Amino acid sequence: MTIVGPENADQARLLRLLRDGPRSRVELADAVGLPRARFTAEVDRLTAQGLVETAGPAASRGGRRSSLLRIAGQVRFGAVVVGDGRLDVALTDGELTVLARHGEPLDARVGPDAVVGRAVEVLGKLRAEAGLVRLAGVGVALPGPVAVRDGAPSVAPALPGWHQFPVRDTIAAELGCPVQVDNDANVMALGEQHAGTGRAFDDFLYVKLGNAIGSGLILGGALYRGAASGAGDVGHLQLTEDGPLCGCGQPGCLEAYCGDAALVRDAVTAARAGRSTALGDRLAAAGTLTMADVARAATGGDPVAQTLVRDAARRLGQVLVSLVSFVNPAIVIIGGAAPGIGPVLLAEIRSVVYRRSTPLATGSMPIVLSDLDDRAALVGAARLVSDQVFAAC
Amino acid sequence: MTIVGPENADQARLLRLLRDGPRSRVELADAVGLPRARFTAEVDRLTAQGLVETAGPAASRGGRRSSLLRIAGQVRFGAVVVGDGRLDVALTDGELTVLARHGEPLDARVGPDAVVGRAVEVLGKLRAEAGLVRLAGVGVALPGPVAVRDGAPSVAPALPGWHQFPVRDTIAAELGCPVQVDNDANVMALGEQHAGTGRAFDDFLYVKLGNAIGSGLILGGALYRGAASGAGDVGHLQLTEDGPLCGCGQPGCLEAYCGDAALVRDAVTAARAGRSTALGDRLAAAGTLTMADVARAATGGDPVAQTLVRDAARRLGQVLVSLVSFVNPAIVIIGGAAPGIGPVLLAEIRSVVYRRSTPLATGSMPIVLSDLDDRAALVGAARLVSDQVFAAC
Repeated sequence: MTIVGPENADQARLLRLLRDGPRSRVELADAVGLPRARFTAEVDRLTAQGLVETAGPAASRGGRRSSLLRIAGQVRFGAVVVGDGRLDVALTDGELTVLARHGEPLDARVGPDAVVGRAVEVLGKLRAEAGLVRLAGVGVALPGPVAVRDGAPSVAPALPGWHQFPVRDTIAAELGCPVQVDNDANVMALGEQHAGTGRAFDDFLYVKLGNAIGSGLILGGALYRGAASGAGDVGHLQLTEDGPLCGCGQPGCLEAYCGDAALVRDAVTAARAGRSTALGDRLAAAGTLTMADVARAATGGDPVAQTLVRDAARRLGQVLVSLVSFVNPAIVIIGGAAPGIGPVLLAEIRSVVYRRSTPLATGSMPIVLSDLDDRAALVGAARLVSDQVFAAC
Repeated sequence: MTIVGPENADQARLLRLLRDGPRSRVELADAVGLPRARFTAEVDRLTAQGLVETAGPAASRGGRRSSLLRIAGQVRFGAVVVGDGRLDVALTDGELTVLARHGEPLDARVGPDAVVGRAVEVLGKLRAEAGLVRLAGVGVALPGPVAVRDGAPSVAPALPGWHQFPVRDTIAAELGCPVQVDNDANVMALGEQHAGTGRAFDDFLYVKLGNAIGSGLILGGALYRGAASGAGDVGHLQLTEDGPLCGCGQPGCLEAYCGDAALVRDAVTAARAGRSTALGDRLAAAGTLTMADVARAATGGDPVAQTLVRDAARRLGQVLVSLVSFVNPAIVIIGGAAPGIGPVLLAEIRSVVYRRSTPLATGSMPIVLSDLDDRAALVGAARLVSDQVFAAC
């Protein structure tokens, strides 16, 4: 069921360019800078392999009308995102547009066999519904550090049983296509690069909020993973030596202060102590609180909830000052903020970062919220594996 | 006086490979992967331009003996390093070996005209002594942030009068050759990459100690400067909001705790308060203390001096934890430590970093002292401009 891939570096470049959208033959030939005859031959070979097709005439730019080329309509990537208590699976086309998706509650702590098995099952279902399309590859996002070379999670305190489980090889063996696995923050950064605000920048920092906090670095136009694919792993930076205990077993981690679970924990404490009517009423009614409850209370004007959000944002801002000074990105994109709290979060983060960073690092650096919602991870997972599939052999 | 440069990308690659040392024709042809005839033609053209020469027969690997190629012996780069109260100038050959150097005390606060003028003068003197060699280019290291695109210092509180002074264009106009300017930590990282421990690593973090603290990032085999050439600028990260006042006007900067001047300040305070006999005696004898005095007291067993060094190292380690978790380098190289205190410094930094970083980031990451002494900056400055000179037009 494997699909034919590019035969050489020029074909790979053509496919990557077309992944961003259709182009006229003339534009594409200019962009790759190949001699005309060579260009035609490579496009013909990609067409014969079912990877590229003609999409009709291009808009005229004067002179002879050029035809429009695009990734063949039959090319499909699979995307699997193992998230906070959820499994999301999608099929995309060769331009990484999500064509079909299925999401369901699933706690990754049930273990990798069950989760990976269910992901393969859902991919099979989506494929069948689409007429048994072939998959060119499947990208997988996992909620913790991943040893990318091994295609398996490395140390992940939040994911017992996943350590070194061969996620990539298991799915590849089941589906017979290339599979790439990375951590969710890196995958979302790739999604932003393909379809979000990051599209316009060669150097940006993506920060993923949620129960777990992580970041992804796009440097010089490519995902930067570091020497052991550990780059961006900032959730367990220690802010204080005597702070709240983190799920990783250490005190005072960024995540233990600013993760969703940490905010919910503090909100429950405040509600029980009678310090917030809004949170107290909700806790009494539902028996528990969620991040959505905290966000709703904050946007509704509850001062305790607002303080919780602002304190988290301030701490996040303090960490961002270091990171931004260190790598000097062109923009910071923040994803995963609970509904409604984005503006408060952003205002506080900006005030800390702009006050404390060096002018060279932040003189003109925007800090913005992602506008991709949960598609960031699905598009990013497709992008992840397409980078491998659309690479020269 | 400009030298001819490479005419195309293949010639540039040949020159960069030879910059690392002589190679046999056979090896070099393999390394660049050019067809034999094309390879011969490019080498012939580089030879005709006086950039490459034959250095005699290569050691036999069996079969027909290949000849050894190298950068032509007449190629010279200039290196200018404006440092803590010093100006150092050198000439290197095309493999960036220092052939001649001159250093003198010079306070950069006298202003850019005087410093740049003196650097040009010393370069001229070294050139004359070497038989009026032509310079292929000059690399310049400055002790503060540099807007690399402009070839000029940006905000530098420690360097009044230097803001936006056209260092690159001034020297280029004087000498008629390409000039590249960058901050000293970046330049030293390049020196480590060329001639130091960094030579074996594609991803490393270089940390420069001294009055000013900075860092340079080699990522994926190249110096990473960030979106506005501000990457690595960590000296003014704020450790506490109520810490000692920094030269930049803000309280609690890393530099205000761990810079040489900060340690000397604390040592003087301790000496005056009678808390250290060693430091007190030295202060009484010399009327002042230097970082070398503090280092000597620490290595001599003075507990106050040792505590100062250890406290600085611990704080530096805490900052390194963030940086290392964030970019996941293969190794951290620390340069600029005062004589003798390296081992104490390193032990303390390691204990903090290994205790607090994620295993993926630091599982096998060495932290070592630079073994390049002050050649790091001179070799790095030559490397900086050679990257430009040995690039395709």
